Formats: sequence, C-alpha cells, structure tokens
Amino acid sequence: MSKWVYSFGAGHNEGKAEMRNLLGGKGANLAEMASIGLPVPPGFTITTEVCTYYYDHEKQYPPELRDQVGAALALIETAVGARFGDTQKPLLVSVRSGARVSMPGMMDTVLNLGLNDQTVDGLAAASGDPRFAWDSYRRFIQMYGSVVLGVDHHRFEEIIEHVKLDRGIVEDTGLTAQDWHRVVDGYKEMVAEVTGKPFPMDPAAQLWGAIGAVFGSWMNARANTYRRLHDIPASWGTAVNVQAMVFGNMGEDCATGVCFTRDPSTGENIFYGEYLINAQGEDVVAGIRTPQPMAQLKAKPHERSMEAAMPNAYQELVAVRAKLEQHYTDMQDIEFTVQQNKLYMLQTRNGKRTAAASLKIAVDMAREGLISETEAIKRVNPSALDQLLHPTLDPKAPRKLLSKGLPASPGAACGTVVFNADEAELRAAKGENVILVRIETSPEDIHGMHAAKGVLTTRGGMTSHAAVVARGMGRPCVAGAGGVTIDYGAQALQAGGQVVRAGETITLDGATGEIFIGSVAMVEPQLSGDFATLMEWADKVRRLKVRANAETPLDADTARKFGAEGIGLCRTEHMFFDPQRIGAVRQMIMSETESGRREALSRLLPFQRKDFADLFRIMVGLPVTIRLLDPPLHEFLPHSEAEIAEVAGSLGTDVATMQRRAAELAEANPMLGHRGCRLGISYPEIYEMQARAIFEAAVEVAKESGAAPVPEIMIPLVATRRELEITHNQVDKVAQEVFAETGHHIEYYVGTMIELPRAALTADRIAEVADFFSFGTNDLTQTVFGLSRDDAGKFLPLYVEKGIMPKDPFVSIDIDGVGALVKIAKEKGRSVKPDLKLGICGEHGGDPASIQFCEEAGLDYVSCSPYRVPVARLAAAQAALTGGGGDRTA
Amino acid sequence: MSKWVYSFGAGHNEGKAEMRNLLGGKGANLAEMASIGLPVPPGFTITTEVCTYYYDHEKQYPPELRDQVGAALALIETAVGARFGDTQKPLLVSVRSGARVSMPGMMDTVLNLGLNDQTVDGLAAASGDPRFAWDSYRRFIQMYGSVVLGVDHHRFEEIIEHVKLDRGIVEDTGLTAQDWHRVVDGYKEMVAEVTGKPFPMDPAAQLWGAIGAVFGSWMNARANTYRRLHDIPASWGTAVNVQAMVFGNMGEDCATGVCFTRDPSTGENIFYGEYLINAQGEDVVAGIRTPQPMAQLKAKPHERSMEAAMPNAYQELVAVRAKLEQHYTDMQDIEFTVQQNKLYMLQTRNGKRTAAASLKIAVDMAREGLISETEAIKRVNPSALDQLLHPTLDPKAPRKLLSKGLPASPGAACGTVVFNADEAELRAAKGENVILVRIETSPEDIHGMHAAKGVLTTRGGMTSHAAVVARGMGRPCVAGAGGVTIDYGAQALQAGGQVVRAGETITLDGATGEIFIGSVAMVEPQLSGDFATLMEWADKVRRLKVRANAETPLDADTARKFGAEGIGLCRTEHMFFDPQRIGAVRQMIMSETESGRREALSRLLPFQRKDFADLFRIMVGLPVTIRLLDPPLHEFLPHSEAEIAEVAGSLGTDVATMQRRAAELAEANPMLGHRGCRLGISYPEIYEMQARAIFEAAVEVAKESGAAPVPEIMIPLVATRRELEITHNQVDKVAQEVFAETGHHIEYYVGTMIELPRAALTADRIAEVADFFSFGTNDLTQTVFGLSRDDAGKFLPLYVEKGIMPKDPFVSIDIDGVGALVKIAKEKGRSVKPDLKLGICGEHGGDPASIQFCEEAGLDYVSCSPYRVPVARLAAAQAALTGGGGDRTA
Repeated sequence: MSKWVYSFGAGHNEGKAEMRNLLGGKGANLAEMASIGLPVPPGFTITTEVCTYYYDHEKQYPPELRDQVGAALALIETAVGARFGDTQKPLLVSVRSGARVSMPGMMDTVLNLGLNDQTVDGLAAASGDPRFAWDSYRRFIQMYGSVVLGVDHHRFEEIIEHVKLDRGIVEDTGLTAQDWHRVVDGYKEMVAEVTGKPFPMDPAAQLWGAIGAVFGSWMNARANTYRRLHDIPASWGTAVNVQAMVFGNMGEDCATGVCFTRDPSTGENIFYGEYLINAQGEDVVAGIRTPQPMAQLKAKPHERSMEAAMPNAYQELVAVRAKLEQHYTDMQDIEFTVQQNKLYMLQTRNGKRTAAASLKIAVDMAREGLISETEAIKRVNPSALDQLLHPTLDPKAPRKLLSKGLPASPGAACGTVVFNADEAELRAAKGENVILVRIETSPEDIHGMHAAKGVLTTRGGMTSHAAVVARGMGRPCVAGAGGVTIDYGAQALQAGGQVVRAGETITLDGATGEIFIGSVAMVEPQLSGDFATLMEWADKVRRLKVRANAETPLDADTARKFGAEGIGLCRTEHMFFDPQRIGAVRQMIMSETESGRREALSRLLPFQRKDFADLFRIMVGLPVTIRLLDPPLHEFLPHSEAEIAEVAGSLGTDVATMQRRAAELAEANPMLGHRGCRLGISYPEIYEMQARAIFEAAVEVAKESGAAPVPEIMIPLVATRRELEITHNQVDKVAQEVFAETGHHIEYYVGTMIELPRAALTADRIAEVADFFSFGTNDLTQTVFGLSRDDAGKFLPLYVEKGIMPKDPFVSIDIDGVGALVKIAKEKGRSVKPDLKLGICGEHGGDPASIQFCEEAGLDYVSCSPYRVPVARLAAAQAALTGGGGDRTA
Repeated sequence: MSKWVYSFGAGHNEGKAEMRNLLGGKGANLAEMASIGLPVPPGFTITTEVCTYYYDHEKQYPPELRDQVGAALALIETAVGARFGDTQKPLLVSVRSGARVSMPGMMDTVLNLGLNDQTVDGLAAASGDPRFAWDSYRRFIQMYGSVVLGVDHHRFEEIIEHVKLDRGIVEDTGLTAQDWHRVVDGYKEMVAEVTGKPFPMDPAAQLWGAIGAVFGSWMNARANTYRRLHDIPASWGTAVNVQAMVFGNMGEDCATGVCFTRDPSTGENIFYGEYLINAQGEDVVAGIRTPQPMAQLKAKPHERSMEAAMPNAYQELVAVRAKLEQHYTDMQDIEFTVQQNKLYMLQTRNGKRTAAASLKIAVDMAREGLISETEAIKRVNPSALDQLLHPTLDPKAPRKLLSKGLPASPGAACGTVVFNADEAELRAAKGENVILVRIETSPEDIHGMHAAKGVLTTRGGMTSHAAVVARGMGRPCVAGAGGVTIDYGAQALQAGGQVVRAGETITLDGATGEIFIGSVAMVEPQLSGDFATLMEWADKVRRLKVRANAETPLDADTARKFGAEGIGLCRTEHMFFDPQRIGAVRQMIMSETESGRREALSRLLPFQRKDFADLFRIMVGLPVTIRLLDPPLHEFLPHSEAEIAEVAGSLGTDVATMQRRAAELAEANPMLGHRGCRLGISYPEIYEMQARAIFEAAVEVAKESGAAPVPEIMIPLVATRRELEITHNQVDKVAQEVFAETGHHIEYYVGTMIELPRAALTADRIAEVADFFSFGTNDLTQTVFGLSRDDAGKFLPLYVEKGIMPKDPFVSIDIDGVGALVKIAKEKGRSVKPDLKLGICGEHGGDPASIQFCEEAGLDYVSCSPYRVPVARLAAAQAALTGGGGDRTA
C-alpha cells in the first residue's frame, strides 16, 4: 500500500530534510526540526505525490488517503491532548501548502481550522478568553471563505467595518468578544448568500475542503506565473501540511515572528527579524501592523524588542538559530510563535537573500568552516551577481529628495512612475524603464515587478511581500514609505506637498530607502573583498576561459577589471558609426567603383588602426578576437530625408543618386542578405583595409611595448569552406605586405564564426582552413528557429507563456536545436583538428545555463558583455563543479 | 616511368574508348576507331594528366614528356613516310585539344603545323600544287598566329583584303600561289611587328607552342564559362591530340564534312550532314561557305550531294556510319576528310541532340535492339525533356512573317531583340524575355545565348556554332537567315524592307526556321508516342512517387495529364489573392478582435471549401497535401496609397488605421517572422476555418462520388514539437465537429513541413505527433545558408561564377548542408515511426540531381510543378537505376 501521509513532531518523525521532493520544503523541514529536538507542534504532511495523483486522476484522491489522514490526525490528538471537533477541548489545525521549492505568498493557508459554532465555546473555555476564541473563529471563516470558498475578501472587511461603525470604534483591538460574535454571524450569513450554501460546520469537511484548496491553488494563475519566472515544472506538485495550531494571539505573553539567521540584505552575521506581540503569523508578513525588532541592540526608542519583552523565549530562539545554521549550513528564514511564553518553531527554510548577502554569507560561512570553498561557489547564483556589478547612485550627484521608506532591496533604479503591474509590463516591453509604485504588492503584481526596474510601496515592512519578492528578483525596492500617499484614481503620488504623476521620472535607492524626484546620476559599483575572494575561488576550479565582447577602450577596461581573459568579440562595425568616420563609410558605400571605395577606405584606415592599437594596449598579453565587417552596408546609410540631403551634399552627389543607391542596397531580409564574408568577397578592399589596420596596429604595439599582441581575426557568416579560404587568403596577403613594409612579423590566427547551420554541418571541411571557431549563437538561433530577433516580439512572449518554448532562446541557449549544431560542429571540427580552439560569443556567453552547456560541450571559452564577466566566471566554476547537465527538452 | 603519350593509328593503338578520362574524348575515340579498322590518320595523344601536371607545376611539363612525344612523332613519320621538318616531303600535323567531354568550339586547334619557308616548297613539290602549299602555309600562320601567339584575327584578314584589292579580286578562290606567297610575307611581317619576334620557323618549336596553347586554352574565360554552365570540373584537364594532316583542300577530289548518324534535331534515322569539296574541316563548321548535303535524296536542285559528287567515298562513309552506331550504340557526330578520293575519319563522338531527338533516338534504338529499355531511360537527360513540354506556336494564331532561316533548334520563343550577349544577360537577369540576334555566334556569346529565350543568326548552317550550342542548351534557334541583315551600329535588323529595332519584339519558330514580327500565340505541346513510351518504361523502374505542387484546377489537370500521382503541395494562401476574396482577407487582418476575424473568415470559408472540393474531384483516389496558411499577414495588405484608401473605404475604416495596422504588421525579416504555424497559434481561427473548409469539401466529395478523398493537412514552419501538437489538436477538433455535423467520417492525416533546421534536428520528437514529413527545401536552404532568396541576387551569381558554390542551391539541393539535415530528419523521424511518409516539396522536387539525392536518402515521393512532373518521373527512374550518387562537395 502506498504511503501518502508522513507524521512529524511529538516523537513520530517519518520525514527528514532530504525528502523535500516528496514532502515539500516546509514539511521536510518541520520533520527535520522535530528530529533534531526543536519544539515543533505535531502534524503531518500529505505528499506531493498526492498532488500529482490528484491532477492525473481528474481531481480524485488516492483511495487510501482518507484512512491515512485519519490515523495521522489521531496521533496529533494524542500528542496535544485535544480532539478534532471536540466541543470541550477542540484540536485546531493549520493547513498549509509546501512545494519542493519555496514559493512565498504564492500558495494559500488556512489557520484555526476545526472551529464551529460548538467548538468556539470549547476554545473560549479552554483558553479562558472568549474574545480570542471569537476572533479566531472569525479569522478562520474569513480565511476559509476567501481561500476555499472563493468569496471576495472585501466582503469580509465590509462586515467588520460595519460593526466598528455601529460601535463607534476605529481599531480592531477595540472590538469585544460579542462584537466578534456579531462579525461571525455576519460572515456566515454573507458566505451562505454568496455561495448558496451554509458555511461548513463539520471539522472533517473543513479539513478536506482546505486540502482541496491547497492542491487547487497549485494550478492558479499566480502560481503558474511564479513557476514560469523561476523555471519550476508544474509536475513537481505541492504537499499539504496539517499541523496543530499554536496561538501567538492568545494574549500579551504570546507573540509571533519571522526572522533570518543573518541579514538577508547585507549578509551580516546578526539575528535579523521582526515580531509582533499578541498576533497571528499572517499579521507579520501582511504588513498591516508595524512589527518590532528582535534584538534590543536594533531597537529604536519607541520600539520594544523581543529580547526585552520576552527574554526567555528570546534566548531559546537564539539557541535555535545557532543550532539551525549548524545543522543546515545555510542562512535560515524561520517562523515562530510564542504561546504563553512557550516557543514553537513553525517553519525553517533556506532564506532568500540579496546578491550581496548571498555573496557575503557564502564567503563568511566558508571562512567560518561551516561550508567548503567549492560549496561557497555553488551557493551564489551567478545571475544574481549581476546586481552587484551595476551602478549605484553617484554620491556627488545632485538630487531632490521626495521621501524615504525602508531599504527593502538594494541597488538604485530610475524610471517613469507606473501605478499598475499590467501597464508596467506593457511599457517595459517597449523598452521603457519603469518604477512600479503600489500601496502594497500582492502575488498578482509579480509580472509587473519583474518588468519594472524598481519597486516602491507605501505599506509593509522588510519582510512584506514587496520586499521579499524584490530581493529575490534583484530589483531595487523601497518599501513601507509611509510619507507617500498614492491616489490610483488620479494616477499620482504625493509626499510633502510635492506631486509626481504617472509617466514622470523618479529614482529609488534601495540601499537607503530614499526616493528622489527625477533622475540621479549613477556610479560604478565598488567590488567588495568578498566578491574578489569568491571570484578567486571560482577561478581556481573553472575550466572554461572567460572573455569579453568589447570594442571601446572603456569596455575593454571594464572587462579587464572584471577579470576578462581577452576579447572574444570585437565588432568592428561599431567603430564605423562614429561621427568622424561615418562620412567616409558612406562615401565608400556610395562609390560605384573599386577605386572610389578604396579611396574612402584609406580615410578610415587610420581610425581603425588606432582603435585596434588601443585595444591591443589594454589587452596586452591576452588574445583579441576581431570580427571583420558583418552588417549589410545599408545599415550605415542615413534614413531621414534631411540626413540624406546632408550626406549627399558632403559626398558631392545628389539626393536622387543617394536614394537610388539606398534602394539598390535595400533588402527583403537583411538578416539573410548581403553581409558578413559575402561583403568581404564582393568588396575585398573592405576586409583588406581592416586587416591592414589590425596588422599595422599590432606591429606598432609590438614595437612600442616589446610584447606582440596576437590578433585572432574572425570571418563572419561563413557558409562554405571556400568563403573562408578566400577571405583567409586575403588576410594572409595583407599580413605579408605589412610585415614586409614594417620589417616586423607577428603571430596571428584566422578563424570563423560558426553562426549558420551549414557551417556547423560542414565544420570538418571548414576546420581545415580555420585556426579557431567562435559560435555566434545569436545568428545560429535565428537561423535554426527561422526566427528574426527583431520580429520575434510579435509571438515569442506568447510562446514562452504557453510553454511552447521553455525559455526565450535568445536568452538561454536552445540545447536541442542550436546546441545540437554546436556539438556537431565541435565533433566535426575536432575530428580534423583535435586542438581546434572553440568559443562562444553570442549573448548566451553570459547566461549561466548556456555556460553549463558550453562546459558540457567541451568549448574552450565563453565571451560575454563586460558586466557579465564575473557572472560567467562564477557560472563556469559551477559548471565545472557540477559536471553533468540538465535534460531540458522542448 | 609515367606514360604521358599514347599513340594511335597505323597499327599502334595504345588507347581505347574507355580511356576517355585519360585521353580525352577525341583521343580515346580516334584510338577506338583505328582499333576497329576505320581509316584514321596516325597520331598520338598527350594525356589529360599532363594538363593537370602542367597546372600543378607552374606550367611546367613532366620531364619525360619531350622524349615520349619524340618517339610517338617518329612512329607517325614511319607510318606516313614523311619526316617532320623535312624539306622534300615534310610531315604536317594537326594539334587539337580533347577533353573528357565534348566542348564544341571551346578549345583551339592548329592545322598544317610543320610548315615553314623551306617545308612549304617540299609540300608544293610533294602535292604538285604550289597554290595549295602556300594557301596551307598562310592558313597555318593565321591559325598559329591567332591561337598560339594571340594576334587579333582581323590583322590577318586585312592583309588578305589588301592583296585582293591590289589584284582586283573578290573571292579567295581567285588568288594564286604567288598571291598567297605575298599574303604569307605580309603575315610574317605583321606577326613579327605585333609580337616583337619573328614567326617560329622551327617545326619542333611550333609543335611545343601549339601544345602549350591547347593547355593554356583550358583555362581561358570561355572554357571556364562553358564548364560552369555544364558542371564540368576544371580539374579534369584536356588532352592534346597530334595527328598527321590529311587534306580536304588539295583539289576537287578532296572534301571535308561533318555528319550525324541520325538527325540531331528530330532523331530521325537518316544520315544527316554537310560537306564541302576542296575545303579544310574548319570551313564547314565556321559557316563561311554554305555546305552541301550528304545524300542525293536531300539535295535541292542547285546543290551537289556528296553521294553524287564522290560516290565511292560516300558509300565507304555509309558503311562507317553503320559500323560506328553498332559499335558505340549511340548516335555519332563524325568528322571526315576525303583526300584524293580516300576517306579519313578525324573524329567520332556521341552527337549532341535536341530533347526530341534524344527521346526518339533512345526509344528507336531500344526498339532496334541496339540498347535495352533501361539504357534508353538513362540516355535521355530529364532536364532536356522540359523542352518537349513547353508551348509551340499556335498554328491558328495570326502572325506576320519577317523572314526565314534554318530550323536549327526546335521550340518557339518570343522576346525583345537584343544584339549583344552582355546586354542579353543583363536584361534577362531583370526578368525580360530576350532574343539574341547575331550575324554569327562565337564562344564569347555563350552566356548571352544561355540568358536568351531564343537565338537568331544570319550566317552559318545547321552545324554552325549557334545551332550546335542552342540545341545543347535547349534554346530555340533560327540560324543562317540570309534574308536578314543586321546593323549593329544602328541596333536594328532588316528584312524585305521591314525594320526591327533593338527592344522590339520578335517570335522565332525553331522547328520551321520562321521569324515573325511581334509576338505569336503559343499552344500546349503535343506529347508524342515516344514520350509516352519512355515514361512508361521509366514508371516501371522508379521507386519514388511523383506528385505536383498545384492549387488551381488547371494546374491539377495539367499535373494529372503529366502523370502526377497526387498533390504534394497545395499552397492555400494562393487562393487568398483572388479579387473576390482579398477583401475578406484584408478585413480579417484589420480586425483587432477574434470575433472580427472570425466574421471575415466565415466569408472566406465557402471559397476555400469550393477550392478544395475542386481539387479533390480532379485528384480522385490520389493524396492531396494541403498546407495551411504560411506567409506573414502583411503580404496580403495593399501597397499603393490609392489601393489603401480603397480598402479602407470598403472596410469602413480610415487610411490612418490601415497604415497603423500595416506598420504594426511590418517586419524586419519577414522570412523569419510571424508566419507559418506561428500564425495558426496566434490566430487559431484561421487554421480552424481552413481545416473546416478541407473537411467539409472532403465530406461533400465523398458523399457525391462515394470515393472519399484522403486529405493530408500540412502545418508549415514548425520549429518545436509543441507547435505541431497544438495545431494538430486544432485540426482534430474541427474534424470531429464536421464529422458530427455531417454524420460522415473520413480518413485524414496531419503532418508537417520540415523546413527549419530545428525541426530536422528534433525530428524524432516531432515525428511522434506527425503523420508525415514534407521537406520544404526552399526555406531549409534559406535558413541553412542564412540566405534570403529575395536578396541572394546581389552576390549568388558571383558565388556560382567563382565556384564558391558549385550550383545555385535554390535550383539544385545542397547535399552537404541541406541534404545533411534531410538525412538527420529522416533517421530521427523513422527511428520513432519506421513507416513515416517522407516527401519533398521545394523547387528541388523537379531537379534531377536533387531527385537523385531523394532516391539515395530514401524519401517516398517528390513534388514539383506540373510541367516538371515528366522530368521528375524520368529522373526518379534514372536515380533508381544508377543507385549510388555523386560526391559533390562545396
């Protein structure tokens, strides 16, 4: 018989932390905590396999489930000494979801389950507090009504407001047991009216309703959105945890809190968290009451720390903290409740953290001996590192403070104000930087938070929904900015008499909580010692080299600072757009004769020579891969009529001639047109000029520095071996000329981009005339999918949303298609030249999943944008450590 | 020691016909003819390996060559009884090229070699004819001077004209021995002046100069052009044939001629040819004198047949003809010379012929028992068949005769008059139909003849350059239209007082030799009994099925008439452009809502249903593959402003809205854009309408005919399995609806185009949800090469010319790239579904080389345009017979 239910607590621990896939994170960790002697209220977990069974069997449960739940419930009753549905001393339970990975706020919870018109009296008698009992009852109906029965939560709020109005009371705390009784009556009446059925009084029916709601919520829209954003398969399913209730809201000797064992923003090794006296857990995270600090040290004058208010429970918690970190060897995010001065642990899980905290915690723990260096490398998400490398506000920049909130997620962001998530997503899709501004956020806002550059809320604390989610996403966030009022109707926010309307610009500093009007200048990030340490550890283990895609001296400098081991892609055409040069470029294009083109190219030569000399100087001792001209010539032509006229004048030709030439050059599909080496073959003088500039620059730098650079000249868009042969010969010829003219010989390589399927499929023959291959996975993705990056916006988002493609293939390499060609090219190329150097220089070079693929495929290096270099270094180290890859399929 | 020289004739036959690759066609056949006892003047062949050696060694000969040539020359001297350079009885030789395959007019020839100021007297004495000797000497200097020394041939003509003027003589025949002596003196003086060196007097120097010129001519521009047009690799090289001279110009008992053993135009089994009394071989083919017929039967009153003039030699030749056909089992193209009534054979080779002749000769020879049926199948070039299937002039059409020439190459052509080859090529490249009009053509005109729809010359006979080349190319040609005069300067031709200028239209009938002013209506070809016979034989041996690409009832009818076994590609979007429908299509595109689109689609439904019902009726019992909508929607939008305004009006919207929507739909790379199944997924209602039209039509035809059609519904542009799953489900859903509504169930299949590299690379997963694959090799070629067919014109011709690509990959499948993906897809697809039906429906489906590939790759069928169906049937038969394929690489 299958086992669908696992008990925990009170000596019956059937699960453990390693059973996360079966029990979900919450259930596995409750069992684990109970096993190591921590005070966990007894309960049981219904496994994720039940969820899978449920969706595979038209929402039916396994037949054995009912009996197993009954048996596990009996164990709780025995442990607690109370019976479910007992009118004298009723057992109350919580029902919570718990998937394999933490999905904060995404799944639904029901507390105080087991209360009805009879048991409420028993609870009143047992607790000696009728107000507590009726408050608990109304909380239960409210949660159950909205979560399980689907009643709009406003309908509940209205009833409370109505009773408060009747009684002339402002705060909930002013309501008495009788008042809550009235609220309960109102709730029951309203629920019956809305649902057409009376509120269920049978505790067993309540329990099964709640279990069904948890499973149902696994497939709701916000859960689906979260999974999509975090690459979580729907097939994993969720578990359901049923646990004896403990009450943080039974009086002043009760409390509830949420803590991190280290600071999740900075990573600092301090006990970090918030608690509320006489409250239930949901009150802390909901951000409705302002929570108080844990440690006396962190308390402000008007605040009351837990250390001061409940010294015994606090000391017990400090011991738990130490035990948990030792046991889990990671920073923990814990929830606890104190009921009548007794501490209960309700949850522990690895805590979400900012990139900075992730880095500091990993390095600190390795130094503390809790984990190894290689474990520290694995602990930091490479994509998150990106946050550390982006600009923060320039301290010297002028700024105009609007208001201040909590520094909920670090980093600076600047953008136009948008008041709703859908609009944020829409405008961001058009390339606009937006700041999402909300009173508070909810799971429905996640897509907008993802699209926004930053998030501002006016309510909620450091552990509010907005704060937790923003930190996880790496979005700067200022939360709980109480000085700011928002008027959704007027589409404006206001603080201290200043009004900012939708569409106007603000700047957030997530590290200080400051909000500025307009945009504020930013500065380069300071890379901390921890960063350097982790990079050093990563460099020790990685096999893949990391280069940067860079054309300008600034890019090249940044790349070196971030540890690039050379330039993997210098796109020479970027050098053509400079205002000083574009005239000559256009003259070249307009020429109908080779001699006219040569004349124009001779004007470009000194510029290109200097470009390359600059790069060679910065990259001294490192390889520099230079791609010869790639885009179609029409990209360099002027577009507006005024510009055309101006260019025509400067070239001594007329507008009609310009337009005729532009029409000649126009292409139906420029991506598949006259570009890459096709240009070099049609107009050999272009590649000759570029090769000359490269060799003259190399000789110049070799002469002045004594250390000769080794240029790697890359021919783009090769489809046939013959194309590479011809252009390779062109380059060799120029090299010999320059060496003869200068009396100086330097080493160089000529290779090709593999960016067309045909090049990959015939890589053995191409390899015979290539010194290296560099996979141009951008174009390879376009041709493999038959998908123009410029046009994909019309349907690719829909495709990703519908799961037709698991990810945007321009972001993360398509292993089955593009990856298959990379492997074919590698095998064919190395069958001819076993030492053929292989790299990747598409956008994928900075994507961790793609780097994992490159490691498995046996490439030699990846090349990415300068800011992604540290990401790539860490991802390469992780890839080297984990070895085997995923089995993603589409 | 390597053997570089092979003797033939006079009992020393070292070669044979099978040694064509080594000795070239001419050399191998001279040896073969000598071996079977035909009268061949003795000689020797320098092998093609010497040519290869020569180009591999910076134009140096193998060291042993000189001795081997000396020894072979000595054999000739012994056989003939004359010595090379002997002043009393000098041996004269011809030096001719001879490559592996016949390249008429492409290579250079030198006759009478061995003459100098001394030996000319010996020739005069030996022949007893000083005029003949000096004429021969001046012919030698003229040929050698132009071919070996590169002197412009006009310079020689001038000298003759000058002497004729001095002597008051009009015809060459009026010149005496003294006159030719003066010409020789003038030639030598002029050559010395032009070349800076005296004309070589040493016969050995002459011989080596001529040999070098033959090898040199292998790489000249016209040879390269010919090879490119006929897919002949430069690496094959040419041989050089040195042979004792025999003279057809030694008097009235001498003659020379060129014959075909059957009529090369019609294939009729008669002796067909021309000869000239007292002439050298070059005089016949050059078209300067008008040759006379061979048989008395074919002689017109003013003509003198060889049969009448030289009855003995003629009878000998008739016997040779029979022996050659029996020996070679193919129609032969022979050259002969009669010297003083003695017949000498100078060449035999398989004769070039028209498509009609090729067909008739193959079928006749099979019936005569000379060859087998399968050999007959192999004998006909499938591409040439195409000519037989194209229109001829409508006999009932009005026409205005301009003039008449020789019916040199059959078929009718209509186009604008162009007087030079370069212009013909240029205008044809722009899509214009042109007729190339020349006084006579030369190898320099080949590219223009290739570009033209037809060729007209005013000089030359049925074996003139123009006639031979045009027949080989399948271009209609009227040659030797003496009634037409051409004025290149005025860019006009004139006949009977009527003037036609460049750019005006004429029509040629190559079957009658008639030239018409303006255009004349054409009619469908009558398919002869021979055609049907050959097709029947082909159908017996072929494995590949042949279907047609067809959308209209006319296309479908034509396809069936030509033997198509179903429709392999019905492009439904072609049905959208009909004026009755385009309004609804545009309304669909302009709608911003699904309901608006559905409303418009419901107007299209009846049209599409009728389209499909028509096709199903014509193709009763045969499969019909229907591709759902493929092109991006913007292809259907109006382009001109007036049209936009009109459409806006009819749709009840404004121009601005139309333009906005058009701008929204515009794409940077439409080929890689929102098209194919991406449309079907974004707008499911489109594919639903099409599926409904298909099923309703199928049910309708099934009900009326009792024979249910089996539609094969094809989803275009699938890149991922999921896309096919979704659209397949859409189709199934509609099928079930229609079956339920009509109470009629029919069988159908849903498959996909494999036209993206990713589909091929993941074909195993796609095959799991596909009933069939059809390779869309057009798009596959575009994506594999990264090459837009619309834009390739900018560089693809250069690529083919430079040999970067051996052929246009849109014409003949690229086996290494596209073919590799086809094979991968086949293997992966059949690994999942061993019986998966595989076809090809790109342009390549009608290309014989591509069909050969399809046979080797194990596809089930090819689909091509209706007119190519017979070509495909024959090519498929040949592919089945030859089995193993080529080793083409790029």
